Amino acid sequence: MSAADAVTDSLENLRARFIGVRDGKPADYIPQLALADPDAFGLALVSMDGHRYSAGEADIPFTLQSVSKPFIYALALSVLGLDEVSRWVGAEPSGEAFNAISLEPDTGRPANAMVNAGAIVTTALIPDTPEEPAFDRILRCLGRFAGRELDVDEEVFSSESVTGDRNRALAYLIRSTGTMPVDPVLAVDRYFRQCAIRVTTIDLATMAATLAYGGVNPVTGEQVVSAEVAAQVLAVMATCGMYDGSGDWLLRVGLPAKSGVSGGLIAVGPARFGVATYSPPLDATGGSVRGHAALETMSQRYGLHLMLNPALPGSTVTLVTTADDLPSAPSAEHERVLHEQVGVVVAQGSIDFTAAERVLYALDESGPNGGSVVLDLHDVTSIDSVALAMLHTGLARLLSDGRRAAVVDPRDLLGPPDVVREGTGQDLPRYATREDAVEGCARALAGEG
Amino acid sequence: MSAADAVTDSLENLRARFIGVRDGKPADYIPQLALADPDAFGLALVSMDGHRYSAGEADIPFTLQSVSKPFIYALALSVLGLDEVSRWVGAEPSGEAFNAISLEPDTGRPANAMVNAGAIVTTALIPDTPEEPAFDRILRCLGRFAGRELDVDEEVFSSESVTGDRNRALAYLIRSTGTMPVDPVLAVDRYFRQCAIRVTTIDLATMAATLAYGGVNPVTGEQVVSAEVAAQVLAVMATCGMYDGSGDWLLRVGLPAKSGVSGGLIAVGPARFGVATYSPPLDATGGSVRGHAALETMSQRYGLHLMLNPALPGSTVTLVTTADDLPSAPSAEHERVLHEQVGVVVAQGSIDFTAAERVLYALDESGPNGGSVVLDLHDVTSIDSVALAMLHTGLARLLSDGRRAAVVDPRDLLGPPDVVREGTGQDLPRYATREDAVEGCARALAGEG
Amino acid sequence: MSAADAVTDSLENLRARFIGVRDGKPADYIPQLALADPDAFGLALVSMDGHRYSAGEADIPFTLQSVSKPFIYALALSVLGLDEVSRWVGAEPSGEAFNAISLEPDTGRPANAMVNAGAIVTTALIPDTPEEPAFDRILRCLGRFAGRELDVDEEVFSSESVTGDRNRALAYLIRSTGTMPVDPVLAVDRYFRQCAIRVTTIDLATMAATLAYGGVNPVTGEQVVSAEVAAQVLAVMATCGMYDGSGDWLLRVGLPAKSGVSGGLIAVGPARFGVATYSPPLDATGGSVRGHAALETMSQRYGLHLMLNPALPGSTVTLVTTADDLPSAPSAEHERVLHEQVGVVVAQGSIDFTAAERVLYALDESGPNGGSVVLDLHDVTSIDSVALAMLHTGLARLLSDGRRAAVVDPRDLLGPPDVVREGTGQDLPRYATREDAVEGCARALAGEG
Amino acid sequence: MSAADAVTDSLENLRARFIGVRDGKPADYIPQLALADPDAFGLALVSMDGHRYSAGEADIPFTLQSVSKPFIYALALSVLGLDEVSRWVGAEPSGEAFNAISLEPDTGRPANAMVNAGAIVTTALIPDTPEEPAFDRILRCLGRFAGRELDVDEEVFSSESVTGDRNRALAYLIRSTGTMPVDPVLAVDRYFRQCAIRVTTIDLATMAATLAYGGVNPVTGEQVVSAEVAAQVLAVMATCGMYDGSGDWLLRVGLPAKSGVSGGLIAVGPARFGVATYSPPLDATGGSVRGHAALETMSQRYGLHLMLNPALPGSTVTLVTTADDLPSAPSAEHERVLHEQVGVVVAQGSIDFTAAERVLYALDESGPNGGSVVLDLHDVTSIDSVALAMLHTGLARLLSDGRRAAVVDPRDLLGPPDVVREGTGQDLPRYATREDAVEGCARALAGEG
Repeated sequence: MSAADAVTDSLENLRARFIGVRDGKPADYIPQLALADPDAFGLALVSMDGHRYSAGEADIPFTLQSVSKPFIYALALSVLGLDEVSRWVGAEPSGEAFNAISLEPDTGRPANAMVNAGAIVTTALIPDTPEEPAFDRILRCLGRFAGRELDVDEEVFSSESVTGDRNRALAYLIRSTGTMPVDPVLAVDRYFRQCAIRVTTIDLATMAATLAYGGVNPVTGEQVVSAEVAAQVLAVMATCGMYDGSGDWLLRVGLPAKSGVSGGLIAVGPARFGVATYSPPLDATGGSVRGHAALETMSQRYGLHLMLNPALPGSTVTLVTTADDLPSAPSAEHERVLHEQVGVVVAQGSIDFTAAERVLYALDESGPNGGSVVLDLHDVTSIDSVALAMLHTGLARLLSDGRRAAVVDPRDLLGPPDVVREGTGQDLPRYATREDAVEGCARALAGEG
Repeated sequence: MSAADAVTDSLENLRARFIGVRDGKPADYIPQLALADPDAFGLALVSMDGHRYSAGEADIPFTLQSVSKPFIYALALSVLGLDEVSRWVGAEPSGEAFNAISLEPDTGRPANAMVNAGAIVTTALIPDTPEEPAFDRILRCLGRFAGRELDVDEEVFSSESVTGDRNRALAYLIRSTGTMPVDPVLAVDRYFRQCAIRVTTIDLATMAATLAYGGVNPVTGEQVVSAEVAAQVLAVMATCGMYDGSGDWLLRVGLPAKSGVSGGLIAVGPARFGVATYSPPLDATGGSVRGHAALETMSQRYGLHLMLNPALPGSTVTLVTTADDLPSAPSAEHERVLHEQVGVVVAQGSIDFTAAERVLYALDESGPNGGSVVLDLHDVTSIDSVALAMLHTGLARLLSDGRRAAVVDPRDLLGPPDVVREGTGQDLPRYATREDAVEGCARALAGEG
Repeated sequence: MSAADAVTDSLENLRARFIGVRDGKPADYIPQLALADPDAFGLALVSMDGHRYSAGEADIPFTLQSVSKPFIYALALSVLGLDEVSRWVGAEPSGEAFNAISLEPDTGRPANAMVNAGAIVTTALIPDTPEEPAFDRILRCLGRFAGRELDVDEEVFSSESVTGDRNRALAYLIRSTGTMPVDPVLAVDRYFRQCAIRVTTIDLATMAATLAYGGVNPVTGEQVVSAEVAAQVLAVMATCGMYDGSGDWLLRVGLPAKSGVSGGLIAVGPARFGVATYSPPLDATGGSVRGHAALETMSQRYGLHLMLNPALPGSTVTLVTTADDLPSAPSAEHERVLHEQVGVVVAQGSIDFTAAERVLYALDESGPNGGSVVLDLHDVTSIDSVALAMLHTGLARLLSDGRRAAVVDPRDLLGPPDVVREGTGQDLPRYATREDAVEGCARALAGEG
Repeated sequence: MSAADAVTDSLENLRARFIGVRDGKPADYIPQLALADPDAFGLALVSMDGHRYSAGEADIPFTLQSVSKPFIYALALSVLGLDEVSRWVGAEPSGEAFNAISLEPDTGRPANAMVNAGAIVTTALIPDTPEEPAFDRILRCLGRFAGRELDVDEEVFSSESVTGDRNRALAYLIRSTGTMPVDPVLAVDRYFRQCAIRVTTIDLATMAATLAYGGVNPVTGEQVVSAEVAAQVLAVMATCGMYDGSGDWLLRVGLPAKSGVSGGLIAVGPARFGVATYSPPLDATGGSVRGHAALETMSQRYGLHLMLNPALPGSTVTLVTTADDLPSAPSAEHERVLHEQVGVVVAQGSIDFTAAERVLYALDESGPNGGSVVLDLHDVTSIDSVALAMLHTGLARLLSDGRRAAVVDPRDLLGPPDVVREGTGQDLPRYATREDAVEGCARALAGEG
């Protein structure tokens, strides 16, 4: 037994709580889907470190169905970019069922890529390459999301193909408005094949985690799509992923999600986790009964609502101290006096726009009037380009105001000295440790004094 | 000049970039609104620390109009709870214009609280109290969001009232389905009054920041609504706040937002900031032309997309080390041998479900096989109840597995000793500093050895 | 007992056949309507001669409700003309329920005058006059349709007014688009009053018969509206009168009709009869269960389908004979020879465009080549202006072709001699009887010969 | 020159009035259609006697397109009956464009057979027979409507097939709901073929006249479909034939009609005429600009509105006289006295329910109190079964009331003596002429007296 089994316990508890629910029944419009075991109930969670947890039948294979949609959309965005993809498919919730036969009045586009019409279009948008036919690209891309090679359940594919007139209708309708670059029958065929790709609950959670982790599969470490594309896909999942219940889902569960008629369901905690469930019995709207219940409970019990950020400020951020208050403050009186005139701002974690503002504000507040300030970046893991520019500008303003500053920046996060000089207009003393920096500032003050 | 002026610079830059845009024109369906200065363009940002930044005409007063909707919804949720409010108004994007005359077919509810129909209902839901008529409650609540007392622009109110037949139609329609507890004419009158409440761009940014900051006004420190209510409001803003352009807005801008026909616009970076713009010229869909452009650019330039979390993991989290690698590791050989058998897990920031998982996983990984482990909570700012239970369970599993552990928990975040004993099944040695804890473990190992 | 009791028998038979039907229940959204006797079942038929037939509770008073709509529309058309009325209300079936909250997207007009929205508008369109407030005009006009003074059931009116929010919503919505010349509350109040006007089944049948009889009340002989207006009203009843079941009704029953929630139902056989039923239990779509069944059966059993014209040609028309075949043909051989050279065209009934074509064609065919022809109009009851012009032109062509003609026109239906001369370019011999005309022609031929 | 050229004059006048209209342009979504001569303008009218009139380019061949729809519907009704056809396609105006992608929510049926969806279904419903494939049946049936063998414009067919994705979408959609008994691609192919059948304006007018004439082609005399089917088709044309302008068309023009994108247009005056126009330039809704204008003007100028029946009563009906007033009344005083006691009712034309009522009412009114009555059926052309039963019943009631009656019924329209005896309960004296009948009655009275 290990400590982390406590996480598995959480999943087991959820499973135990809802395994007894007998509502709903497996999709039966495709005969093969109706054969699914209604008692199977798998849950899985994958963390940003690639840790995988699961409970129940999380290894049983089943077909992706509509859960494929966000990943194909991600592939299309990667290949063609948002502007091009947006010419063919919108991003508005349609307020309609997943298989609604409707296109946007003005544009003729499907409302979004999470409904069948939009998914058929995004599928059709993936071009063949000289090396690889489109479907192989799709299959390979989904495999990179899952972290392993996937295959197609040919029986489900055939079964689906037989009952696919509504989707063929959609495909012809779409082409009739000009928004379909390939043959409708081929597009639908390819769409059905991708719906029939076989995964396990653990695969799904890994795929979800890849979206959560800025497009990087946290298990394999592979960058499957860009962070920007991952964010775009999550945004569309948030507004459109649960069809005409998307608004209520985001309100109550607070996680971008996507369900499929085979019983699979994924939800994403951006920068936190990917989670998936598998349970075939569906409610009247086509969502997995146990999956919905488990994720709603999980979100509420574990405080996972996207908008309910328990970390709030405080974490990625900065502390203002007078060097005098540091643990390493000297005991000698004359040194303490100098230290009192040196402020220290300690930043940690990733520094983005928001954190940069805090840093800059803290720099202004730190130290006695006009005193020196040390910016300690030792515990900072990264600084994005916006934050970097802000720090440069802010430090420049500080220095031009006559204040003295030094940085603890052992990994040159602020850039090499010449870049910093260009950004701030001055040389900025650098130190390896906070103690050295405070000491340096104190000495400078003493030297001045 | 101060470092933080770099933030103001950002707003000034945005203003400069879009002030020259001449598209759109002020709303004219209400004569008073048509009088607005089309050149006015204010921007404001309020941080989670209550820092306020602004540019342009951020002090000009204007009327809230539809920007009032999320705040009234918040008040209704606070007073009645989500379940009761949901009986009267839904949370689904309607895919329709803001003033669509449509109710949900099955329930007769307005689709959501961000369209007129839903806002009229939520307004009507606020009950009078013995001390205070409903409208005074509304006015006072909005004032708490803004951090100052607000008032009504009586001329706009009158003007609006004259042209309000469509909203009266909505109100009667709603009452005809039973979903309106008050007189339609009164409800619409009250709704028009709240639309005519006067604010500045800085007020709006503060109101937005209050939603971002878990319902706490970051300037006044007042808890205006609960964190849960703030999250619910943000979720509905995310899916429904920009009417029939909500999906595209979340895709491209990535921030819950709400616009009003007077030219105001707010957007929220949960746990990060509230931002607002004011510019009266509107596009065909009723959104502020410059406001939309500025926020979209701001989001993209500063990486503010809700789903694009640059902090990703790494920040709120934990480090695994062998005590041997600590800066304070002893130089004496025999002590080093002992230290090599002690792992150390350093956590920092707020610990929630996600962070707790990382801590537990790190505990499992730390130290040599079966060795001791120190959990250092010195830099942890808070542990939520879910994380606390997980830590207790995880530590219990660790101990029952025969491993030795100690914690650095100077503020008793894990709870008083008896609670920890109950949670983990054993006494857990506590130390004030990491060094002491490692030392203690090393000695115990030595004693055993 | 009289022969015409056979007609009453038909109504009694229908009543007997359906009185046992227990489906449906009286409208209950207005408490007063729910008090109606579910067993009451009246039927009435009024012929174009003003003969009245009835069966069952045809004398029980009830309120008009939506059956008022076509008559108010007729009044509005009479007062304002089709073009003006069409500016405010359309004439398209909406495919929606009677109380749908929808207006035409482009025009903001209600779809048609048979749905509530349209009826409220047409009611509002009736202007007050110096002598008479609008509602009194409405009441008086409906009385002229019924052939007696009508009054308002004040209790139903009050009851309706209490539950009328949906209609008030419609009225405000309509005014918000500019298509409502009066105060919405007043318009709805007036609409409710007209819905509460009290009639019997016999009144309804008389009102229907007035529409059938070109706007003339066949009982009183009063011209209530013009024939053109009556035709316009019937056209709208045909496409929109039965709400979203109008198409199926016209297909199966084939009679313009209108139902009301109080249980009244009218149907019109243009130029043939007006019929009405009264039976309060309604089906799910708000139509009288027994009424629908009775009228459908009646139409099928008695061949009343508008498009199934059993009279087909043959009736209003002409016969071609050689005078030799007439009953009054002379026996003398030499006279018979002459008669053989005279054709006779006998017309009867009303002559319109269609009949005129038959007459002209018959004139061409009649008589031996180039022989004489007698047009006998003795049994013609009327010739409309189009037919008159055609007969003049046709006769002119005949005469200019060198053929000899004479007319039997004792009532100068072709106009006075100078008009005929102007129309045909020649004098046309006229005779009082066919015999005289044939004789005249024969003599002329003899004289020529 | 002939008299009937006056009818041709009417068509020529209409043509002259509108040939100068330059609005609209030929359909161009099918390349072949865009090649049509925009100046071609043909008009044709066919009467119930099979007389054909035409003006302009009435002999130019063009393709049927949507004008085929009512005739295929007629064929489907003939083969399968209304109940079976109604299982697959509705009869409600959809309020939508001709190519709307929508099916009835509850039933999955296309709204009606006049929109593409419905037409594809009705086409698909026609079964192959051992002797004849379905399309050959369709082609042959349309030929019987036109009175000549028709063929397919293969170029238009090919052209149409290339651009037919929207219709293929419809076909797949329909099959997906189960309401399509054949392969969607085949059904659409067949539908396109029937749209490409070639006709002239005169053909169209003949086809329309066949619907007007109870399903009998008035030129060939062939019964193409039953009178019932013809009436059903006309009813659906009346409510749905002009797509989303059907209501306004019936209001203003008052004739069941159907237009096609090739420029053809038919309208039907039931029991009066069929009329057609051909002019390729279409308005925005896809209707022939000149065709619409010409038919609207024609209807108004010639009083052809279905609901505006100028014949009103009076024509098919009866006269009440005292025999004393007959032309053949005797001059001898004692005979006149007897004659005064004999009433005479003269009926003429076709006797249906409406006319039978008039006859019976007249019988009651005729003659002095309790006197004798003669019913003269000499000029009656037919009596339908309902009227016959009513006459029997009415005469029985008369006789049982002690009145004496006789009939003039040279063609035994009332049935052979034994049938009459059974129907009326008594022998009824029959005479060959009115004079004989009056004489017989008078003598009987004298014998009694």
